[in-house]
Amino acid sequence: MAVITLTTDFGSTDHFAAVMKGVILSIAARATIVDITHEIAPQDLNEGAFIIGQAWRYFPKKTIHVIVVDPGVGSARRPVLCEAGGHYFIAPDNGVLSMIYDATSAPRTRPKVRVITNPRVMLKNISRTFHGRDVFAPAAAHLARGVAPAKFGKPVADFIRLAGLKPRQISPNAWSGAILKVDHFGNLITSFSMGDFAAVKTRPIELRIGAERVRRLALTYTEAEIGEVFAIVGSAGYLEIAANQASAAKILGCGAGAEVQLEIFSD
Amino acid sequence: MAVITLTTDFGSTDHFAAVMKGVILSIAARATIVDITHEIAPQDLNEGAFIIGQAWRYFPKKTIHVIVVDPGVGSARRPVLCEAGGHYFIAPDNGVLSMIYDATSAPRTRPKVRVITNPRVMLKNISRTFHGRDVFAPAAAHLARGVAPAKFGKPVADFIRLAGLKPRQISPNAWSGAILKVDHFGNLITSFSMGDFAAVKTRPIELRIGAERVRRLALTYTEAEIGEVFAIVGSAGYLEIAANQASAAKILGCGAGAEVQLEIFSD
Amino acid sequence: MAVITLTTDFGSTDHFAAVMKGVILSIAARATIVDITHEIAPQDLNEGAFIIGQAWRYFPKKTIHVIVVDPGVGSARRPVLCEAGGHYFIAPDNGVLSMIYDATSAPRTRPKVRVITNPRVMLKNISRTFHGRDVFAPAAAHLARGVAPAKFGKPVADFIRLAGLKPRQISPNAWSGAILKVDHFGNLITSFSMGDFAAVKTRPIELRIGAERVRRLALTYTEAEIGEVFAIVGSAGYLEIAANQASAAKILGCGAGAEVQLEIFSD
Repeated sequence: MAVITLTTDFGSTDHFAAVMKGVILSIAARATIVDITHEIAPQDLNEGAFIIGQAWRYFPKKTIHVIVVDPGVGSARRPVLCEAGGHYFIAPDNGVLSMIYDATSAPRTRPKVRVITNPRVMLKNISRTFHGRDVFAPAAAHLARGVAPAKFGKPVADFIRLAGLKPRQISPNAWSGAILKVDHFGNLITSFSMGDFAAVKTRPIELRIGAERVRRLALTYTEAEIGEVFAIVGSAGYLEIAANQASAAKILGCGAGAEVQLEIFSD
Repeated sequence: MAVITLTTDFGSTDHFAAVMKGVILSIAARATIVDITHEIAPQDLNEGAFIIGQAWRYFPKKTIHVIVVDPGVGSARRPVLCEAGGHYFIAPDNGVLSMIYDATSAPRTRPKVRVITNPRVMLKNISRTFHGRDVFAPAAAHLARGVAPAKFGKPVADFIRLAGLKPRQISPNAWSGAILKVDHFGNLITSFSMGDFAAVKTRPIELRIGAERVRRLALTYTEAEIGEVFAIVGSAGYLEIAANQASAAKILGCGAGAEVQLEIFSD
Repeated sequence: MAVITLTTDFGSTDHFAAVMKGVILSIAARATIVDITHEIAPQDLNEGAFIIGQAWRYFPKKTIHVIVVDPGVGSARRPVLCEAGGHYFIAPDNGVLSMIYDATSAPRTRPKVRVITNPRVMLKNISRTFHGRDVFAPAAAHLARGVAPAKFGKPVADFIRLAGLKPRQISPNAWSGAILKVDHFGNLITSFSMGDFAAVKTRPIELRIGAERVRRLALTYTEAEIGEVFAIVGSAGYLEIAANQASAAKILGCGAGAEVQLEIFSD
């Protein structure tokens, strides 16, 4: 009983996500299908990369994650099957798996990426506009039924990684990053991860976004004043800019893609 | 293990759709329930008809599709069970199954429609306001458990079909149709289907909507300029008005129900 | 095959609800997970209490309902497991289960509430910000796998009930209540339940909200004029203020939390 997750920018007002589920259940009737979200901002590869990068590790080993954020559908971009961290990922080769590649690359392990070329794991007729239905969903279902990854296509090494997901250093103590996502509560999730910026927890910092300067690092959302803007290490392990019982995004007027600078003071 | 799909205008902020699932699982514990969408515009029968008309064929044979767009709940409108195309459909008899009737009517096959009258396939107490819970969900669950369609009620021939889903001819080369749906990306899906208007693919055309004239028929969303408005045959097999990486609905200021004219030139 | 329902204020644009499902499926692979809604207004305990209070009884006996509306996450508020009405409820002890306590308290039966303290039913690392993932989801999954409620923690009697869910009398014939929820159609659901105010069905009434006075009690949504504002006993068994094919919330400019007074005339 394989688990198949879906992450798309299809929204929930159309039949597109449901059609993918129909295709999956027609091939793999016993699959358990879980929506991660269908509300990725249209064609926003950074947000797609962030969401699947956060969610995958909480699912059982061998889960098959399907990600369809696909501005290049119908063009020459390739569909890929990635084996990494004990999970499977099926997506267009446009960088949307970048955070998976990063999280699962280590000296001895490496993501194995194949281009999906075998027509037997796709629907018979491939439209130019809906590869979620015609390529990605059936590929996931055939994998769930036990078709071996090697049958999907040949391994490749030139798969695409997104630039812009990782902060770059702009002075000895400062880095320029970005807002990767505004969550449902209006918290601004930055690209500063605790893996790379653990010093944030022990040294004084300043976050700069627009005209705002944030110096307070809170441990819980409730320790700040109501409406106060503060920094916090979110459940994702990334530095977030938040406001107690209010939307930091609304207070600051900022959204995904905005630049945010981090300075870490030496004492 | 039957598959039951749900298509409603209940939205996702209330408990209504979940209550239908609870009722189904209380009767048919092993059913696999799939949401098609709960975001049909309130009481919009055309949109409901379009969505189920698009989605059903991608599900496994014998899937039970429940559609609850029901402006007449509590009045004399009848609940129906329709057998068509190897699938089952349970809905109010208000035309929301029109595209199913059209798609499955052929010289030798015809949808079989029964009025649901057997109280044993409903909940004991029938409210006047929530037949999704009291009639449609339990009927689907009893069907999933193996109750024969003939036990639901008698066949009828006077089931309702919506006018307005099909274009009408207004001159030798021109037809007047409608926008059936604005999808999540802002693409305007017209009522011109490739089944009836295949000539669109081989001859020059003009689509007229409001003050806009669209003559370009693109094969993929990416071949047009960014922001350019063009026509395309969508994954649903209907002519759509789209814009590359932009919302055609916003650019044109049009929505569901708007008139759109199609002219097909002879050379 | 246990059923686990989820009711949260996480929205559907983030990965949070999906992460809870991943955690559940990692522990209890065969659980059937049903979303009640993830669109509770952020941190609105009244709305959370109302939604689960409406939905739970339609699910099979032994269903495990997880409710995460949790403004106090990371503070000293306790997680609880409640056995009531033949169902299980797992939630923060902040009053969000108030309507469950009310509905299942009778002379001889009483909800049994335990504080969840056993670390074996939680994830190993408990964050300060996401107990839905770290405490509530794994607790539900361990319960689904058969861990006995007594293993979760000790019974308590001082669990929290919300004030403000029940109307208070303001004159011999009049009560002051509140709008508990605006549903997807714009109907205003009041706190006047038919259990406590059955006289509404047989005597003349007046509902007062803002400047509006509503005296008509309709039996179906369609018997009123289009756009007319009227009262109706909704499918939830609560008095609602509705408008035929229109949003009463928009017409009256009112939302959740607004005061509504009910007067019941003696003849």
